[in-house]
Amino acid sequence: MINAKIIAVDVKDIRFPTSLNRDGSDAMHTDPDYSCVYVTIKTNTGHEGYGLTFTLGRGTEIVMQACKSLATIVKFRKLEWIYEDFAKFWRRLTSDSQLRWIGPEKGVIHLATAAIINALWDLWARIEGKPVWKLLSDMTPKQLISVIDFRYIVITFTLTINSVYIFLYSRDIVDEHSARIILEEKMKLRQEQEKKLLKNGYPAYTTQVGWLGYNDQQLEDLCKKFLDLGYTAFKIKVGNNLQDDIRRCEVIRKAIGYGNKLMLDANQVWDVNEAIEWMQKLAKFNPIWIEEPTSPDDVSGHAEILNKLKPYGIGVATGEMCANRVMFKQFLRYHAISYCQVDSARIGGINEILAVYLMAYITKRKHNVRWKFVFTAPVCPHAGGIGLCEMIQHLQMWDYICLSQTNENRLIEFVDQQHEHFENPVQIKNACYMPPTSPGYSTKLKKTSILEYAYPEGNYWKNKITKEKETEERHD
Amino acid sequence: MINAKIIAVDVKDIRFPTSLNRDGSDAMHTDPDYSCVYVTIKTNTGHEGYGLTFTLGRGTEIVMQACKSLATIVKFRKLEWIYEDFAKFWRRLTSDSQLRWIGPEKGVIHLATAAIINALWDLWARIEGKPVWKLLSDMTPKQLISVIDFRYIVITFTLTINSVYIFLYSRDIVDEHSARIILEEKMKLRQEQEKKLLKNGYPAYTTQVGWLGYNDQQLEDLCKKFLDLGYTAFKIKVGNNLQDDIRRCEVIRKAIGYGNKLMLDANQVWDVNEAIEWMQKLAKFNPIWIEEPTSPDDVSGHAEILNKLKPYGIGVATGEMCANRVMFKQFLRYHAISYCQVDSARIGGINEILAVYLMAYITKRKHNVRWKFVFTAPVCPHAGGIGLCEMIQHLQMWDYICLSQTNENRLIEFVDQQHEHFENPVQIKNACYMPPTSPGYSTKLKKTSILEYAYPEGNYWKNKITKEKETEERHD
Repeated sequence: MINAKIIAVDVKDIRFPTSLNRDGSDAMHTDPDYSCVYVTIKTNTGHEGYGLTFTLGRGTEIVMQACKSLATIVKFRKLEWIYEDFAKFWRRLTSDSQLRWIGPEKGVIHLATAAIINALWDLWARIEGKPVWKLLSDMTPKQLISVIDFRYIVITFTLTINSVYIFLYSRDIVDEHSARIILEEKMKLRQEQEKKLLKNGYPAYTTQVGWLGYNDQQLEDLCKKFLDLGYTAFKIKVGNNLQDDIRRCEVIRKAIGYGNKLMLDANQVWDVNEAIEWMQKLAKFNPIWIEEPTSPDDVSGHAEILNKLKPYGIGVATGEMCANRVMFKQFLRYHAISYCQVDSARIGGINEILAVYLMAYITKRKHNVRWKFVFTAPVCPHAGGIGLCEMIQHLQMWDYICLSQTNENRLIEFVDQQHEHFENPVQIKNACYMPPTSPGYSTKLKKTSILEYAYPEGNYWKNKITKEKETEERHD
Repeated sequence: MINAKIIAVDVKDIRFPTSLNRDGSDAMHTDPDYSCVYVTIKTNTGHEGYGLTFTLGRGTEIVMQACKSLATIVKFRKLEWIYEDFAKFWRRLTSDSQLRWIGPEKGVIHLATAAIINALWDLWARIEGKPVWKLLSDMTPKQLISVIDFRYIVITFTLTINSVYIFLYSRDIVDEHSARIILEEKMKLRQEQEKKLLKNGYPAYTTQVGWLGYNDQQLEDLCKKFLDLGYTAFKIKVGNNLQDDIRRCEVIRKAIGYGNKLMLDANQVWDVNEAIEWMQKLAKFNPIWIEEPTSPDDVSGHAEILNKLKPYGIGVATGEMCANRVMFKQFLRYHAISYCQVDSARIGGINEILAVYLMAYITKRKHNVRWKFVFTAPVCPHAGGIGLCEMIQHLQMWDYICLSQTNENRLIEFVDQQHEHFENPVQIKNACYMPPTSPGYSTKLKKTSILEYAYPEGNYWKNKITKEKETEERHD
């Protein structure tokens, strides 16, 4: 690591007025203004790192305050001190003896942690001159393990036959040792996987076709558009009204046929029984999963829904609001998810996301295999929002090269919004994410976008506020 | 409800320099400055309500920002609109379509919700001229039920024999209907319970004897002091060093004997296996519970610890950092707690706390009893901090009058700190909390305390900052 020191941490509130077109609307979030807190870490050598966390408009000011508070822990640190024991630094940031009370490791303070940690990874990758996926894929298993804080992610193994759970044995399944053994086993295929990735990219699915605020015609037109682009997997929002959902499912199945994949997303609107009954009525449309059927904290509820929908061939997906690695452990431990939808800005950045990938994978492929009925949840990460596609592609590509080494049952979500504001936006070819080539985590926003959409001082918001005041005065 | 409107929501950051004496110190929070965000709700009729949420110093500025953001939802509302369907208003506050992304219902935004909701209850009780415990105890079951948002707290019932879990059946166990039936059954004993409460108060235990920063002599002296005051239950902090803990347990058992109750509190420092092994070594000191043995999100970890410590007669207690009613549902559902330590300022105020009391109780006493092996977790609420004792006493007294109607296996935590800053501090007699007599939620701070400890503009902090600058300048 170069001999450098952090001299400033700039924090900005950036908001895009997406609610105007109801882009991003779902049953729970009817009018999101896709926003982010944008962090720039500056060093005395001129190197800079850019990180962000995604928000929906109101509340961004709270996360911004949290980033400013955490920045005091980061400022004036030597890079050496941070990166040489990154797990230790991560714990320093997430376990401050006073700040941890207002989390711990969840909600506002953890979103802020993500923005800062993501900026530190961007900085590291820029210094090394590599995109993050390549930086990670060039690390030895020992180096990878060294960035993860393993506190609290001991997993108890269980056997499940139908709905009877039996404790078989318990051990640290995601300890440093077993994780390292798995990663070392996978070393020999890394090069081959990287070649395949560079050639084919990583398959995506689209959520762009069916925001809840879109009408049937929009839905149909967008299906055609994305079919033409080569997509074979489509997700729509449901949960507002059953009759509407049935009609919308008919429209989409007519447009995409039954050969393509359909996923449904309820964004937490249901209680457990409601979710089961509603989905039984949509089962005939063969969705492969129902996403966020109920509260993101309701592990037992998800387990019950999963159990009841299994006979219909419908899986349960969740994770975009899963608070941290400890909560993911609950979902895995209690067999409550079929697909693990980790998000790049909800939990504490890459260090913690790697822990989730390891848990979701290692619970399947234990080193010393003795039990058949072991649960698995392939990672199909959440994306969209602001910069979530840009970031998570790096992690899923690392998984393809270094960990699961497969894309079977795995897809990255793709939402075609707000990419134009990034200096290095995602590149999609034949419905696949192509590996980024520029150094960093693809998180740097264009200067023009910041000038326009910084809140409330950017040009767009300044004009809007001025106009609103003028209208108000005319009405007085 | 009177015809009044909210005209202002004032929010203040108040910090007490408790870290100077290591009061409140534990294995995870080594230097807390007990603090709060203090909310004053003002109406056009001159009525005011005071509410707060507890913090540890740094980070209070973030929660203050969250209170200011939520205040926009409260301001200019008619009181009628809020109190006539309080559950609806509660959901409006916790489910704002943009703000909920940065929770939902957890961490910073939920602490802020607590401060505002608590202020609204204080306002209501002041208007009615009653302390909150009496306001609640005079409500009909229908009125009580009407303030609770039942979303997401469906409970699946299970049978447990040793470590084998079997799904027996599932139903809405905490729905409006069953909750109301239980509360109505209890109506006939209310008057009698209230009389007993007014005469005897509600039993407390003390945490004041064994903060981790106190030495053995302090521990011994404080045990004597609290024994003389009539206490029969004592809690000390553990988890930093096993040899220290063994020595401290010897000191306290020598001081209080084996006839009194001892509780231990690890404040989340351990991993699961560590917790089990450490507690096996402290089992000879007969603690009735180990509190917060590991991450507050690790339901499966708590279940395993509970299971392994059962043969030693040690229970598992947690709740002060349990994020919301949905998380409490997990702990109850998966048999992961022996004692439910709900906190008055962590989850979304009285409306949500009532839901937790109902869940913890009704999971025990189902209306139509058919199964023997049903789990129960008596509520022994978390208190201390700033104003937590002042608030939670009201709820536990309501439980004594209207719900469980017993104090068997139940105690309220008592910490003898920062009460002098309140206009109506807790009254302890013979180691029992005596029912408050002044209208409200006992949450109003003295003006002098606000002038002194408001941060950073209060006199104490202004002087401290001035002195630090002078010292710095002398050293330059």
